[in-house]
Amino acid sequence: MGILPPPSTSPSADIMVHKALYLKDIFSQGYVDTLAWIHDVRSSNECVILVLRDSSDVVEVKICSEKWLPVLKNLTRESLVRIKGFIKSDHVLEPELVDIVIRAPPTIPIDVRSPLPDDVKTFTRYSYLVIRSPKYSKVFKVQQWIMYYSREFLLSRGFVELLPPMIGPCSDPGLRGARKLQTRLYGHLYELMSSVIMFKQASVAALEKVFFMARNVREEPPENLHTGRHLCEFTQLDLEWAFATMDDVMKLAEDLIVYVMTKVKERCKDIIEELNPYYKVPRTPFRRLRYVEAVEELKKLGVETPEGKEFTQEGERALSQLYEEPIWITHYPVISRGFYYLPDPEDPRFNRDFNLLLPRGFGEVIDGGEREYRAPEIRKRIEALGEPIEKYTWFLELAEIGIPPSAGFGLGIERFTRYVLNLKYIWEAAPFPKVPGVVPSP
Amino acid sequence: MGILPPPSTSPSADIMVHKALYLKDIFSQGYVDTLAWIHDVRSSNECVILVLRDSSDVVEVKICSEKWLPVLKNLTRESLVRIKGFIKSDHVLEPELVDIVIRAPPTIPIDVRSPLPDDVKTFTRYSYLVIRSPKYSKVFKVQQWIMYYSREFLLSRGFVELLPPMIGPCSDPGLRGARKLQTRLYGHLYELMSSVIMFKQASVAALEKVFFMARNVREEPPENLHTGRHLCEFTQLDLEWAFATMDDVMKLAEDLIVYVMTKVKERCKDIIEELNPYYKVPRTPFRRLRYVEAVEELKKLGVETPEGKEFTQEGERALSQLYEEPIWITHYPVISRGFYYLPDPEDPRFNRDFNLLLPRGFGEVIDGGEREYRAPEIRKRIEALGEPIEKYTWFLELAEIGIPPSAGFGLGIERFTRYVLNLKYIWEAAPFPKVPGVVPSP
Repeated sequence: MGILPPPSTSPSADIMVHKALYLKDIFSQGYVDTLAWIHDVRSSNECVILVLRDSSDVVEVKICSEKWLPVLKNLTRESLVRIKGFIKSDHVLEPELVDIVIRAPPTIPIDVRSPLPDDVKTFTRYSYLVIRSPKYSKVFKVQQWIMYYSREFLLSRGFVELLPPMIGPCSDPGLRGARKLQTRLYGHLYELMSSVIMFKQASVAALEKVFFMARNVREEPPENLHTGRHLCEFTQLDLEWAFATMDDVMKLAEDLIVYVMTKVKERCKDIIEELNPYYKVPRTPFRRLRYVEAVEELKKLGVETPEGKEFTQEGERALSQLYEEPIWITHYPVISRGFYYLPDPEDPRFNRDFNLLLPRGFGEVIDGGEREYRAPEIRKRIEALGEPIEKYTWFLELAEIGIPPSAGFGLGIERFTRYVLNLKYIWEAAPFPKVPGVVPSP
Repeated sequence: MGILPPPSTSPSADIMVHKALYLKDIFSQGYVDTLAWIHDVRSSNECVILVLRDSSDVVEVKICSEKWLPVLKNLTRESLVRIKGFIKSDHVLEPELVDIVIRAPPTIPIDVRSPLPDDVKTFTRYSYLVIRSPKYSKVFKVQQWIMYYSREFLLSRGFVELLPPMIGPCSDPGLRGARKLQTRLYGHLYELMSSVIMFKQASVAALEKVFFMARNVREEPPENLHTGRHLCEFTQLDLEWAFATMDDVMKLAEDLIVYVMTKVKERCKDIIEELNPYYKVPRTPFRRLRYVEAVEELKKLGVETPEGKEFTQEGERALSQLYEEPIWITHYPVISRGFYYLPDPEDPRFNRDFNLLLPRGFGEVIDGGEREYRAPEIRKRIEALGEPIEKYTWFLELAEIGIPPSAGFGLGIERFTRYVLNLKYIWEAAPFPKVPGVVPSP
């Protein structure tokens, strides 16, 4: 690449101003001197109404001075302007300067003011514009606090956060219908992390209490698009605790959820009030139902569960709608679940495992249990997968040396965000969502 | 998979005890009742010396009671024991119970007591055991606090942390010799993130100040193994700020480093004192050198820099060894750098960009600058790559609609950790390191 021509304007001098004033403050300050996006523009009698947007707010100002009207009438939405002037009564702005830094084209692919999540293909295809909508800016501000307070809570309980691997010779094979993604590094086949379960079991031998904020990728069956709660790329707060029982980690999960929801409610009060009228910090302990009891409950509602299988999507939704608070389902049939759970010594047809279902139809947010740690059992299970066993070499070696018994869970960050903000679809809770069956999206 | 036989022992009853006592407290408490790993075992006269390890400490106890000697003499390192008893004077333990929960094989592939990072192939191949060594447990405890305080600082400055994508239709092409990894999702070609630069530029149009704690993968040239500071999988604190200048983000980076190093020193005092005698919170502002000045400095040392190129590994190391404090190198030649930097309007042969070099040979930890945001320039640069242009469709669309001018940087978390803890090699600062040219490793 050769030397580029000098920029037509000098951005450092002209555009890259240190932005000290944000839109949220212009009415209390009485003046504007900032950079903002044209969220909307319309005429009103002899004036122009500008709806301005920046990262702090969306505000409406009215400009009536003749000098600026020709410039303003041709403004397109999503243009970027530098604007200076004084605010008079009734949101009237008297400009000193209106400089169009970026002129957006007259039509853009989606309506940034309120992109439609029902049209999932357009929504995900143009996620790079969706993020500009005021609603989704707020979602991501809340999401960061969910992560921040989760970490604050877990660090206070002695957990260590580890950097999550992105690829490995093998990843979690227990995906129930989803497919793992592959890549090559120096010609060697690697898998993209579908979950970091094996790395968790390796780490607890050292640090005892660990978690990863792990990105996972899975090629979900395309029909899972219609559940509204499956992403192909998602984040798990993936936690493991050596020597703990399922009761220990269930209690920990309850405390985590209560802590985060209490803190987020304080920190993001206005957004919560705007987006989620149902927001309620749940009471602990959460109700528990064994799998077999839940199957009975569903039968009463006329919903059948296939023998020894996990609940159908319909069944899970029905269960989730029965309750006003999160509910634990425990002791799933061994034959319904993958790979790494420990059968219950008291009745080995069932695991010592659990899911947490969120109420009002939001469904599963946590999946966890006690882990199989005995080398012969791990080997048997891996052999039964029918995958090339060499992929699992390191984990089998580790099992022979010794994996401590442990319990843990994965909490879906996007699912939890969706619940906290009462979003209709999971893809509204991910900044650049990749959804089942839809490619390519950024 | 069928129903498994019941476990031979009931782990919930026997092993999964709620571990309330940690080794660090046994001498002040006067008793032991815990689970611990056999870090070492040796005989001494009629007694056995056990070096016990858990996540809190490594401690030595002496057991002389005849009843337990036959059991203890055959203990293997990395076995897991449940141990109960009273501590007498001089670290003598009188056991009530010594139960071998896991008996490790007599030989294991590395010496967990102090794995040798010089033997990088063994070190990375057995990273699942390396993590057990007391030194590396400490490294990862410090690393989590580096990340925690980085977030605390950036959130206090109004930055929003976004979930990082793992794959996309395109990733950063400006890799200087490294290769991007590919995968397929529903048959469509995707790239694993080599950096999230394009996603940062998309996000600042909405949130203005953003960062990602992004995992990146790059197939580095195998010879980069010998720099001791390249990983194939690594973490960038990848930050972007709309409308900011390079001076703004350089100042921000200085404040971030000082904040984190001050806090980490308080929080991890003992570990820092043990591992890094050179630990010093740097003074701000950091010294700045233009690229052309640095080339002159190197010449004086007899180190040549190829015309218009970045410094050689030798040159960077020499520069880094010249100074006692971190040093900025600014205004690299446009032709030496990839893709996304903005040429300096005052002299367009050079970018408005920068690297931060850590002193004492640690080298580059930050890479950043002001960004090219003008659609025609972005298009020209992408066309010049010689890659299929369709991969970049979404980013070119976005450029036509409008990308705001911005500045930002990526800070290598593992490199920063290496510096903070004075580690010889970068792979000592990553929990499951993947290094240039070495496959497979977990």
